[in-house]
Amino acid sequence: MVAAHQRSVLTAPEADFPRWYQEVLDKAELADNGPVRGTMVIRPYGYALWERVQAEIDTRIKLAGADNVYLPLFIPESYLKREAEHVEGFSPELAVVTHAGGKLLPEPLVVRPTSETVFGELMAKWVQSHRDLPLLLNQWANVVRWEMRPRLLLRTTEFLWQEGHTAHATAEDAAAYARRIHLDVYRDFLQNVLGLPVLVGVKTARERFAGAVNTMSCEAMMGDGKALQMATSHELGQNFANAFDITYTDATGQRQHCWTTSWGSSTRIVGGLIMGHGDAHGLVVPPRLAPIQVVVLAVKDDQQVLDAARRLTTALTEAGVRARVDLRTDQGFGRRVTDWELKGVPLRIEIGPRDLADGEVSVTRRDIREKTSVPAGQVVTTVVRLLDTVQQDLHKTAVRRLTSRMVDTESLQEAREAAQSGFARIPWKILGADGERALADDAISVRCLQTADGAVPPDPDSVDVVAVVGRSY
Amino acid sequence: MVAAHQRSVLTAPEADFPRWYQEVLDKAELADNGPVRGTMVIRPYGYALWERVQAEIDTRIKLAGADNVYLPLFIPESYLKREAEHVEGFSPELAVVTHAGGKLLPEPLVVRPTSETVFGELMAKWVQSHRDLPLLLNQWANVVRWEMRPRLLLRTTEFLWQEGHTAHATAEDAAAYARRIHLDVYRDFLQNVLGLPVLVGVKTARERFAGAVNTMSCEAMMGDGKALQMATSHELGQNFANAFDITYTDATGQRQHCWTTSWGSSTRIVGGLIMGHGDAHGLVVPPRLAPIQVVVLAVKDDQQVLDAARRLTTALTEAGVRARVDLRTDQGFGRRVTDWELKGVPLRIEIGPRDLADGEVSVTRRDIREKTSVPAGQVVTTVVRLLDTVQQDLHKTAVRRLTSRMVDTESLQEAREAAQSGFARIPWKILGADGERALADDAISVRCLQTADGAVPPDPDSVDVVAVVGRSY
Repeated sequence: MVAAHQRSVLTAPEADFPRWYQEVLDKAELADNGPVRGTMVIRPYGYALWERVQAEIDTRIKLAGADNVYLPLFIPESYLKREAEHVEGFSPELAVVTHAGGKLLPEPLVVRPTSETVFGELMAKWVQSHRDLPLLLNQWANVVRWEMRPRLLLRTTEFLWQEGHTAHATAEDAAAYARRIHLDVYRDFLQNVLGLPVLVGVKTARERFAGAVNTMSCEAMMGDGKALQMATSHELGQNFANAFDITYTDATGQRQHCWTTSWGSSTRIVGGLIMGHGDAHGLVVPPRLAPIQVVVLAVKDDQQVLDAARRLTTALTEAGVRARVDLRTDQGFGRRVTDWELKGVPLRIEIGPRDLADGEVSVTRRDIREKTSVPAGQVVTTVVRLLDTVQQDLHKTAVRRLTSRMVDTESLQEAREAAQSGFARIPWKILGADGERALADDAISVRCLQTADGAVPPDPDSVDVVAVVGRSY
Repeated sequence: MVAAHQRSVLTAPEADFPRWYQEVLDKAELADNGPVRGTMVIRPYGYALWERVQAEIDTRIKLAGADNVYLPLFIPESYLKREAEHVEGFSPELAVVTHAGGKLLPEPLVVRPTSETVFGELMAKWVQSHRDLPLLLNQWANVVRWEMRPRLLLRTTEFLWQEGHTAHATAEDAAAYARRIHLDVYRDFLQNVLGLPVLVGVKTARERFAGAVNTMSCEAMMGDGKALQMATSHELGQNFANAFDITYTDATGQRQHCWTTSWGSSTRIVGGLIMGHGDAHGLVVPPRLAPIQVVVLAVKDDQQVLDAARRLTTALTEAGVRARVDLRTDQGFGRRVTDWELKGVPLRIEIGPRDLADGEVSVTRRDIREKTSVPAGQVVTTVVRLLDTVQQDLHKTAVRRLTSRMVDTESLQEAREAAQSGFARIPWKILGADGERALADDAISVRCLQTADGAVPPDPDSVDVVAVVGRSY
């Protein structure tokens, strides 16, 4: 049985996607503007989503052997001059502390746009012998990059992220580790938890991170066909080690420069979740990510109903399901249903006096909004099975969209047209750096370069690759 | 069998406690100075301890019903003028951003010393009806208070903390919640996980948080007999709600001001762990907190030994023990033992060829440095049992120290003398505000006021209470 399609409280996403996005942020109570332009308040439900993203990524980072650390918020301005190329990239984005402790500071302090330079200093100190390698570090922190055109969760003056920094004895080891993070941490999380298919590949020289010899990214397609870069992983060669003098004594007693990597992901992933799975009725959260997987609604203020709702919630929790009970029977039922739909909770269970009399409850899937009656005794097993089905189905739906809106092209003109509504694949030999520049005039960029079968090219400078181009956030 | 007492690599704590503390930070690789004076780098092992503190406190906060949020780092300077009393307290401690985006800002931005004012603004917006109450929020974040005499993990310009802010319909509900956090979150964590006995009580009017009608704190005794305030919980009456206009419509349609609370704990708890349990050989971590509960050392580079060490570590992990294997047989054995002792890992297991031949391993408790031989087949059950024993024993040892260094006194002079080496209890009727002022001249403060049997006084302004006085960090 398909639920009656009530009118949505949101602007239709196909009518005005940015407005729909802003309304979802508001009405699902995810995030709000901070008092300073460009800053962001992450509200309880939005933060619960971020905590789940963080927990899943953190577990994978730790499995890859990296340790978390915390580095200071403030960086002496002089530090940023050490890696010239780096300052070039950030200077207009910096927030600068000039006064503290009631006085003018002798040297201004920069609020970290990244902790890269401090990691550089510390790694130089901590790495001495080949026994100290690889040194695998990560940090979860807030960073600040002054933003003139902010958009909540996508591009804000302050955001939350993780940045990993590692030092290795050989180029091969560094390259293998950057790829491991790219695939086993980021792609694995994005595909298997967030439920979004991602394109993996390398960036062109033009799009590469300043100072990197290879930048790899995970690119996802949003509901409007635009790309969102979800995470990046960089091989820095010996550039960073040279700038910060990160050296080690090898087994023969020689001083050698290290090979380093860095990699990051941020609260932007929550923006990607909204735009990647959301629909006309709000957010749609994949079960493996969802902080609330099932909400149990007591339909009526009736003692038996309230007790049954509480009991079922406990039974679900004991079965390992993240369940929440909603006993707010003093509020309109339709409003409560709309609220949970806006928040994208994967399954909604309704229990009323008639359900109790019939010995069943109704279970509604948020993704396809399909309601079914389930005998009371089978609810827990049905829910566990359905959560898995919904997870798979959301991924399939996202794959279908990506496939249907990604076109193989053989010319710049074809690629430009296809990129209006999705992604275009075009051989790099046809596109080249000139074509890339031409597309940039139309706000189309090369999202990544892949092998013909969609894998990460072993050589970042190979010309025998396919470029995926599109508009992006 | 008691392990041979090798010479410690540390200054004796009884000889120079501050120096011992600094050496533990260094040699156990916990924390280091940042590039800006007063800032701190938290190294992997120090951060792993903090992550465990965070996880345990966060679980308890969520059980108490509060939701996490994230508020911006930057606060417009004008915000801090709204609550005059508040600015008074912080002004010399503020770091101020005057330039950003390459320009002078029209209004300077303060780097949050706390997010209190932003919470005030948001709560005023989010609370409308009595149905929105209680509103229970918490934030984990970095804050900045310019510090002229920094000490790592105890008093730094930037530190990590959680701050809870809640709004309630009645004074009773607010008071009950502040007490619940004080006892069920803070005291429970500190006593049952961190293994430190804590004195719970209220602050005197002099020591109360600006704007609070009641400040409660958990005070622990450090190895040198000084007090460390581990966490505080405040009832703010309607002061904060008046300043920020946090109001709700009650069931009869009347506008009412809310009653609010706030409460916090920080990375200082890791400092308290070091000074509360540490000994001549370094850190001593209670098992329930320990990120590594057991380290399994392969004594020799022998295939059978390495395999056995790995197998045992897996078996321990499968039994739910946080175990780590140390296969660094290319480094001196004594050095490795010293390292794990410095880090305070509760149990150390050594496996060598002779142990394998004898079908046993040696297990050493870090707290009492006692080594015993355990038959290979009983290691896992022995370890699980020993971890519990060590947890209880550490708490008992700390209770013994607190008891032996806390003296009941009946005069100012007696109290002053006792506070040189520990705490003094003195009836508030004898001490009073005048006595409190007199002790302050000798750097002795009232840590808290308790009932005669050590409980939190129901009335914060009761005079029929006992003052616990001491020197403090």
